[in-house]
Amino acid sequence: MSKYWSKLAAGVEPYVPGEQPKDKKYIKLNTNENPYPPSARVLEAIRAAANESLKLYPDPNGEELKNTLAAYYGLKKEQIFVGNGSDEVLAFSFMAFFDPEQPILFPDITYSFYPVYARLFQIGYELIPLNEDFTLPVERFLKPNGGIIFPNPNAPTGEYVSLEAIENILRHNQEKVVIIDEAYIDFGGESAQRLVDKYPNLLVVQTFSKSRSLAGLRVGFALGHCDLIQGLERIKNSINSYTLDRLALAGAVEAVKDEAYFQTTRRRIIETRDRVIAELQKIGFKTGPSQTNFIFITHPQIKAEELFEKLKNEAILVRYFKQPKIDNYLRVSIGSDPEMDRFLEVLRKIIG
Amino acid sequence: MSKYWSKLAAGVEPYVPGEQPKDKKYIKLNTNENPYPPSARVLEAIRAAANESLKLYPDPNGEELKNTLAAYYGLKKEQIFVGNGSDEVLAFSFMAFFDPEQPILFPDITYSFYPVYARLFQIGYELIPLNEDFTLPVERFLKPNGGIIFPNPNAPTGEYVSLEAIENILRHNQEKVVIIDEAYIDFGGESAQRLVDKYPNLLVVQTFSKSRSLAGLRVGFALGHCDLIQGLERIKNSINSYTLDRLALAGAVEAVKDEAYFQTTRRRIIETRDRVIAELQKIGFKTGPSQTNFIFITHPQIKAEELFEKLKNEAILVRYFKQPKIDNYLRVSIGSDPEMDRFLEVLRKIIG
Repeated sequence: MSKYWSKLAAGVEPYVPGEQPKDKKYIKLNTNENPYPPSARVLEAIRAAANESLKLYPDPNGEELKNTLAAYYGLKKEQIFVGNGSDEVLAFSFMAFFDPEQPILFPDITYSFYPVYARLFQIGYELIPLNEDFTLPVERFLKPNGGIIFPNPNAPTGEYVSLEAIENILRHNQEKVVIIDEAYIDFGGESAQRLVDKYPNLLVVQTFSKSRSLAGLRVGFALGHCDLIQGLERIKNSINSYTLDRLALAGAVEAVKDEAYFQTTRRRIIETRDRVIAELQKIGFKTGPSQTNFIFITHPQIKAEELFEKLKNEAILVRYFKQPKIDNYLRVSIGSDPEMDRFLEVLRKIIG
Repeated sequence: MSKYWSKLAAGVEPYVPGEQPKDKKYIKLNTNENPYPPSARVLEAIRAAANESLKLYPDPNGEELKNTLAAYYGLKKEQIFVGNGSDEVLAFSFMAFFDPEQPILFPDITYSFYPVYARLFQIGYELIPLNEDFTLPVERFLKPNGGIIFPNPNAPTGEYVSLEAIENILRHNQEKVVIIDEAYIDFGGESAQRLVDKYPNLLVVQTFSKSRSLAGLRVGFALGHCDLIQGLERIKNSINSYTLDRLALAGAVEAVKDEAYFQTTRRRIIETRDRVIAELQKIGFKTGPSQTNFIFITHPQIKAEELFEKLKNEAILVRYFKQPKIDNYLRVSIGSDPEMDRFLEVLRKIIG
């Protein structure tokens, strides 16, 4: 605490990302990164963009990336916002659409950045408890609110909610913005992006960090009615005119264009995930029907925290959340097949 | 205006950056970019970083860049904050150090992003009028305030204020943070960074966009007491854990290391600037003693707005601010020697 901090800076509780240990080489299954490298075409595009033009500011509007995403999703470029990772897009969304007076709704077990944003921007919120089985209690989102946000599939539980349920929420909430945070949608779920033209209060947020293997490039985006996108642009242009550098813009454009590579790696992760789930069940683990690139697991015979430590000792890093309701679960990112084979081998040894 | 916007989004007046026209090829002297390419070593480092590791999140703390800057400036890494361009660093600084209740002070003629930040974060401010000759009225900053910010050298006037004057302000203001925005300091002035160890309320903000020829890479940083840096980290980690991508981090590290290239290009711009000022004075222009990579000019016989249009017709883009006190001035970035020769040639033709 410093006397120079604003009340805001003193009052926040910053988000803590998954650890990036440097002490030894780990099998890193703790931050939902993609085990496969970015498309070779993406790397080529970045190398080509590493030229003299870096002396010039990037396009502040990211027009080429917006046009590329618009073509891909069958939307207009005015329906697309691009940002420095989906975290930035989410932070700007909290500023653009939520007011302090009216509490917003999100699940009690969810992406732990939401309460951080709410606190920073002094937006009240009500936590909606998930059902016992971690599914989303849709009917509890049908009451008056200042806005709604949840990930679909949810994190860290991996539970997916149908587009019918989302439409139900959208219809009951036409005066406020509903944000669907689809960081993991490419691993099995159906995107709400096809509802964007129908519901002017729907904002869909996605990222290049997971399914496009580009966590290191920092690119996220939002799809929605042009009024919502304009609201986001107003916030962005009041903070930083150029949030995406020339290299990130060039790489992201090529990532969208290399559809074949995207489909191949995405499917490979889905296959690995489903195989790992089946193997885990054989040795007594319980896990939900994940539609993401991670699994959320628990075992009746061994405490999650103990398991976390034992895995870490074996140079396997997973994510443990010491928080009520989920403190006996581990979130495990889906790595490559050899990585997951090693993970299973170690688990079999631990479980005995 | 949309019913879905928050009061905040509805109330802001976003910043408008200098235009990036696409209609034809211009000599671009309107956004203070560097006419020289980034160091070849920087481009090489970026190409080398465009590899498989982009699938992984970057270091959220930018340790290597902080260590490199710390060694360069003779500070500890805990005294350094890095961000996605100095605009983001400035925005976070407004959040971290200024409170709504007590108005901050900045000059009436200055970087036009300051009032945008203040409005976004609902921080009151008092404009301190510059002296007639655009110099900073230092004594007017010695009164009670909620914080102080100004660029040194100032923009768009180019006026530089001495470190003695800055120390005077710091001494009179020990309870509040004083931010010196040094985007242009490498073009002649002396940085306040050498006061950082002496004044715990001093934050110095710099950028790689101008003197390091990397406007397209989006890297800025702040130097200050570790308490101030921690305040900035708290805000950053409540918005976006990873503001700098792997390529920007790699490029920025190498830019600091290539001191020889930095010195060469920086000196070349200073020489061109001084030559251009001398030539402009010969044809009747008035211009102050710039310590930046731009000049702020006016001519007794021709209105600045008219001159702006005539230059644009000749494919030369400069910056015109239609605002009181400076609406008869043009801000002209220092380009390469051939670009400035063409600029002078066109001006001589216009002035006749």
